[in-house]
Amino acid sequence: MTQLIGLTAGLLTTIAFLPQVIKTWKMRSAKDLSLSTFSLFFVGVALWLVYGVISNDLPIILTNVFTLILAGILLFFKLKFK
Amino acid sequence: MTQLIGLTAGLLTTIAFLPQVIKTWKMRSAKDLSLSTFSLFFVGVALWLVYGVISNDLPIILTNVFTLILAGILLFFKLKFK
Repeated sequence: MTQLIGLTAGLLTTIAFLPQVIKTWKMRSAKDLSLSTFSLFFVGVALWLVYGVISNDLPIILTNVFTLILAGILLFFKLKFK
Repeated sequence: MTQLIGLTAGLLTTIAFLPQVIKTWKMRSAKDLSLSTFSLFFVGVALWLVYGVISNDLPIILTNVFTLILAGILLFFKLKFK
């Protein structure tokens, strides 16, 4: 049960950024998004990935690879669309 | 060293949302923010908190309490400012 809650939590906080990627792509606008937020978040998720690799923890690696890709796309959109 | 990376990662992914809260408050605009993203993220972080409480894991509890507050404020702003 505890593990199921953890897995659901990880799944939700990972896929959460997909609708933002789709919305920003469609609107071609990232004016309201904070550059600091997505920069800090990108570096933080990258460090979670490093942590997962060092700890050899597959769930941490998998969720953070996916989140890193989404966060990277959002950071790129922010710089591109302003 | 591994623990330091994990702590830094947790700190960054938590404080990351603070500049977004400040920016959205100042601009009074959340048009570009995805409601689905912040709804899913809020529920996901709440589940991480439940997971932390059940697992009696203080770092997970602390980081997710703070992130939950920030995510809750952003969700409120999104509904308030549109």
